[in-house]
Amino acid sequence: MVIRILLVMVFSGFILSAAIADVPPPHLSLMPLPASVQLGDGQLLITQKFTVGIAGYKEARLERAGRRFLENLSRRTGLPVGLDVGDPGKATLVIDADHASRAVQELDEDESYTLEVTSRGAKLNAQNPLGILRGLQTFLQLVAITPDGFAAPALKIEDRPRFPWRGLMIDVGRHFMPLDVLKRNLDGMEAVKMNVFHWHLSENQGFRMESKRFPKLHEMGSEGLFYTQEEARELIEYARDRGIRVVPEFDVPGHTTSWFAGYPELASAPGPYAVERRWGVFDAEMDPTKEETYRFLDRFIGEMAELFPDAYFHIGGDEVKGKQWDANREIQKFMREHGFTTHRELQEYFNARIEKILTKHHKRMVGWDEVLSPSLPKDIVIQSWRGQKSLAEAAKQGYRGLLSFGYYLDLMHSASQHYGVDPLSDEARMLTPEEQKSILGGEACMWTEYATPENIDSRIWPRTAVVAERLWSPQDVQDVDAMYERVEAISLELDELGLRHLSSEKRMLRRMAGTVEIAPLLVLANVVEPLKEYQREEEATKAGITLSRDAALNRLVDAVPPESETARRFARAVHRLLAGDLRGGATEAEIRASLEVWRDNDALLQPLLQRSYLLKELIPLSHKLAGLAEAGLQALNYRDKGELAPADWTAAQSAFIEEAKKPQADLLLMILPSVYSLVESVSAPDSQGPKPAPQPGSTP
Amino acid sequence: MVIRILLVMVFSGFILSAAIADVPPPHLSLMPLPASVQLGDGQLLITQKFTVGIAGYKEARLERAGRRFLENLSRRTGLPVGLDVGDPGKATLVIDADHASRAVQELDEDESYTLEVTSRGAKLNAQNPLGILRGLQTFLQLVAITPDGFAAPALKIEDRPRFPWRGLMIDVGRHFMPLDVLKRNLDGMEAVKMNVFHWHLSENQGFRMESKRFPKLHEMGSEGLFYTQEEARELIEYARDRGIRVVPEFDVPGHTTSWFAGYPELASAPGPYAVERRWGVFDAEMDPTKEETYRFLDRFIGEMAELFPDAYFHIGGDEVKGKQWDANREIQKFMREHGFTTHRELQEYFNARIEKILTKHHKRMVGWDEVLSPSLPKDIVIQSWRGQKSLAEAAKQGYRGLLSFGYYLDLMHSASQHYGVDPLSDEARMLTPEEQKSILGGEACMWTEYATPENIDSRIWPRTAVVAERLWSPQDVQDVDAMYERVEAISLELDELGLRHLSSEKRMLRRMAGTVEIAPLLVLANVVEPLKEYQREEEATKAGITLSRDAALNRLVDAVPPESETARRFARAVHRLLAGDLRGGATEAEIRASLEVWRDNDALLQPLLQRSYLLKELIPLSHKLAGLAEAGLQALNYRDKGELAPADWTAAQSAFIEEAKKPQADLLLMILPSVYSLVESVSAPDSQGPKPAPQPGSTP
Repeated sequence: MVIRILLVMVFSGFILSAAIADVPPPHLSLMPLPASVQLGDGQLLITQKFTVGIAGYKEARLERAGRRFLENLSRRTGLPVGLDVGDPGKATLVIDADHASRAVQELDEDESYTLEVTSRGAKLNAQNPLGILRGLQTFLQLVAITPDGFAAPALKIEDRPRFPWRGLMIDVGRHFMPLDVLKRNLDGMEAVKMNVFHWHLSENQGFRMESKRFPKLHEMGSEGLFYTQEEARELIEYARDRGIRVVPEFDVPGHTTSWFAGYPELASAPGPYAVERRWGVFDAEMDPTKEETYRFLDRFIGEMAELFPDAYFHIGGDEVKGKQWDANREIQKFMREHGFTTHRELQEYFNARIEKILTKHHKRMVGWDEVLSPSLPKDIVIQSWRGQKSLAEAAKQGYRGLLSFGYYLDLMHSASQHYGVDPLSDEARMLTPEEQKSILGGEACMWTEYATPENIDSRIWPRTAVVAERLWSPQDVQDVDAMYERVEAISLELDELGLRHLSSEKRMLRRMAGTVEIAPLLVLANVVEPLKEYQREEEATKAGITLSRDAALNRLVDAVPPESETARRFARAVHRLLAGDLRGGATEAEIRASLEVWRDNDALLQPLLQRSYLLKELIPLSHKLAGLAEAGLQALNYRDKGELAPADWTAAQSAFIEEAKKPQADLLLMILPSVYSLVESVSAPDSQGPKPAPQPGSTP
Repeated sequence: MVIRILLVMVFSGFILSAAIADVPPPHLSLMPLPASVQLGDGQLLITQKFTVGIAGYKEARLERAGRRFLENLSRRTGLPVGLDVGDPGKATLVIDADHASRAVQELDEDESYTLEVTSRGAKLNAQNPLGILRGLQTFLQLVAITPDGFAAPALKIEDRPRFPWRGLMIDVGRHFMPLDVLKRNLDGMEAVKMNVFHWHLSENQGFRMESKRFPKLHEMGSEGLFYTQEEARELIEYARDRGIRVVPEFDVPGHTTSWFAGYPELASAPGPYAVERRWGVFDAEMDPTKEETYRFLDRFIGEMAELFPDAYFHIGGDEVKGKQWDANREIQKFMREHGFTTHRELQEYFNARIEKILTKHHKRMVGWDEVLSPSLPKDIVIQSWRGQKSLAEAAKQGYRGLLSFGYYLDLMHSASQHYGVDPLSDEARMLTPEEQKSILGGEACMWTEYATPENIDSRIWPRTAVVAERLWSPQDVQDVDAMYERVEAISLELDELGLRHLSSEKRMLRRMAGTVEIAPLLVLANVVEPLKEYQREEEATKAGITLSRDAALNRLVDAVPPESETARRFARAVHRLLAGDLRGGATEAEIRASLEVWRDNDALLQPLLQRSYLLKELIPLSHKLAGLAEAGLQALNYRDKGELAPADWTAAQSAFIEEAKKPQADLLLMILPSVYSLVESVSAPDSQGPKPAPQPGSTP
């Protein structure tokens, strides 16, 4: 048997045609890509007789993992695979861990594994159950339909993560997410080998964890939407089974309006307070000068430290404006007495006190950029929403850090944009190897102003899989086209697991339309994306609208995925055409066909838009799509004739495109840059012509 | 305000154009249709300020129902509706029940309600909480998107069921269904006002309920797949909250192999026994001659009678072959001693003994047709899989009955076929009004040889909604076209509730194809239906295949819905065309477009079929679809020229159609009868021509 040694590059799109010879390599839809893969000959057929056996170290969690694996295998294949995990002697897949992992999962635990698949069976070895969990996910992703049945290709994988902290944060403060939403997202995390669930549990808009010591926190701070401690334990257990740590965040001293609903005495200004319903940054801040504040936090953190076993505890610490502090005489007096001249110094004092409380309860502090200060011990972790520069500065001071800048899922960036963000790029690249070790990894962050249990999966997935790959796979895994191909396969796997990123859009569209016949609405939905970054807020401000939890998230902007696959493919086709693609005829026909559909769609769609309150706002958008398509078709006509377009035509198109760039219904028409390119390609260089290429949002 | 009094007829398709005047009546997508509807003027806008208040009788179940209603309303609209059920004074919807329902839901309880909606609010009145539950579902179905927002039309509904027993049976013996599958199906039942969940808990292939007295029943009879008693209580509670009774079935004395795995001493032939994996009718039968059998059943039924609060208890009693009885000398001796000459007499003896045991435990017996015998008391209930004749005979003897003949969901009949089955039709029509009262209603039955947790929803829904309407709505609600229109809306509602009948097919197709790009596969999938009745078994027998639980249910036949909506619409278009539709041109263009897609699809689909083990069997089917489409197109060409086709063409098409009728991959091509009609329409009456119209399956 000839083992062909292939590099990770093969899977990221680089084709070694000579080495592959007659049989093409199996298409490995792995995400994250493993550190190393050696392809073998043949494949392991998966039948209903497939079994899993445990050799070596045994524990109940491993058995549950084996059973869950078999359930997932059955779901992937539709085969009635037996679910008992048994005797390693006869098993198709033998899992073999050397020893137990720690009682509470720790940051530095080994997650490496070796997976060997031959046509006769498979062996999965790891130091401890964490590596087994990771390897089982790899095996599942290897299983594909072939002409002979479901099979995994013969190969040997040696794999380990690049970073030890690969997290997903979900903000359950702004919109509460029921436990089943979190569970299915933990399933998704497991599938892509993420290992930290950062549970953002308190916000101005909601305090979501039951406190037995201070029951008014959840009773008055949650509008009835909170997790019981029993549920928290259930989730922690669920996460542990999947090799995922749970790091709770209770954000202090700002973002605390919901705390003050029940305990106004903690605030820096007199109450009463009510749970905030608007979005934004607010004034409510804890009073860092009162000893009562620390007594309260000591008891509260003590209670939570017992509930959450993880060694790390997130105290937020972001966006403290200091407005209440300025307005409070006692606080001003305190600052003078302590020689503090800035809010920052007062917050540093607060953080240092909190840090001592955490240490007392055997927890290490995690906080956002703002908590960084030389007065704190070196074992705290800085989570950076500001960027690699901020991380690098912390590292140079000896602090460990996590990158979240560039991984904010709510900003609606494309998968390729997230993929391009690396914790060790930019300023962090200049760090010494020793300093680089203090960059622990990163976290994708899901803030939920515009996410509900209904659409949150489509905001998190599949883009988080791309972040997971960035944090797990070797740094040189960078091929964007190959990434998009693999994302498609992983997206299906996540759908099989119960995530709703693929299914929620249609359900929402049908609701908007009030009918099952939504084909023309889908045509429009497929080429738009939600506004990027904070443009939705900017549009609201312009329109004089106060954004809040009272606004329904049932519009098209809430239903469509953050990235338009249709527009991405169209952009690639246009790019090929303009780059002089050899298959020019076929490519142009493809482009023309798309443009014709978009041009003709408006007439089909308008009756639907007219009769629905939720669709009316799309009337001009649908017109504009038709107009853009018409412009593109005319440009193609000029190309076909080998002519440049007249200057007045170019000017008119340019003006139209400029107009179409404006956000409409909080959406962007993502085919616009490609149409612009087509128009530009037939415009005289000296014509007044199009302005610099418009780039709405994120289409690469 | 002018109230226009409209009859139920209006909603079933009969148009009163004069009465409706300028404003068209709102399209009421109600299923089942209420007994009476009076439309008013205007509509009630649904906003996030919508509230529910309880006047009159209060209980926790009503509050939970109100909250669940608000959750569903929020899901239907996407509006962030508050979930607290509060003060009736200020509520948008006031629910008002006169008094409690019984502690355990009973057969004869009142389920009527009155719902009045005006532009200012809504009132829902009922005698007891059951009527409130029914009315809340009606209100939910009234909510639709309009140009002004979500709204319910102003109207007054007075509603009550036609039959008191409207059930769904699910066989969890052949394929185990996890609790969440059952729960979402109970949600579906609630939505269409069904009130009995018949839980078929034991079969040759599995004993699914934990028994504490006889633990070997579930331990050795279930392969680990059973419900704990705790789970049973949870489900009963869940059902009660939805106004649904739970009737357990433990099928005796046949269908009992799984009992004998742990207790072979109950059998009529020596063991050992193992849980049956094949499908079919088997020999294993309890020994009705031994007192030990009755002691066992007394203790077992006693245990179950305590667990299941419902007054009725189903003992199955079907398909006893008597083979083991014939082979057992002791049993033969017993029969001689008792003067029994037939198996039937012995089973009557057994049933009479069981009936006494049930009575002792305060339960009334339900059994399939076979249990009917004058020796049993008149309070037992006969469930008929044989038909109205059988029911009518029972009624004449004073027995009450349920119809399930014509409601077997696993036989893959169309919605219209189920819709056409009425418990009081045929022989039952001739009963006296008093005798008719003993026909309590009916049950849709889901036997699960070919249903798994993955595809069962698509076998049950939406067709069960049609059975629910037949059992609830007035007998004269019969318009099939209107039914199909309303089914579409209800299907979306069921999807919103979490049922997977709409989503499972695509997931399964993607799995078969190993890719997300399944458009050509969908084209084929959309025009086929699974074989009807017991043809799948017949095909297997022909092929020498033993059908069993070991066969994977991951083929196209397992994924496609029982009824092809595409073929149904195509058949209607062809029918319009041949009937000389005034819009002939448009209709023909529509037909031509479909035929061209089907003709051209084969070339697109073949590469996909070649590379998947699960799709290979479709290669000839796809060819045949193309051939049928070509025949249809050629027939249209003759029509357009105003010519009759030559006799040899007709003969060739006829032969091809005959060939295409043969089942392939356990599927039928449902456009075949329509293509046949097109071919026939251009064939000379005297040509050898097509044979009598082929009618695969169920297309009307």
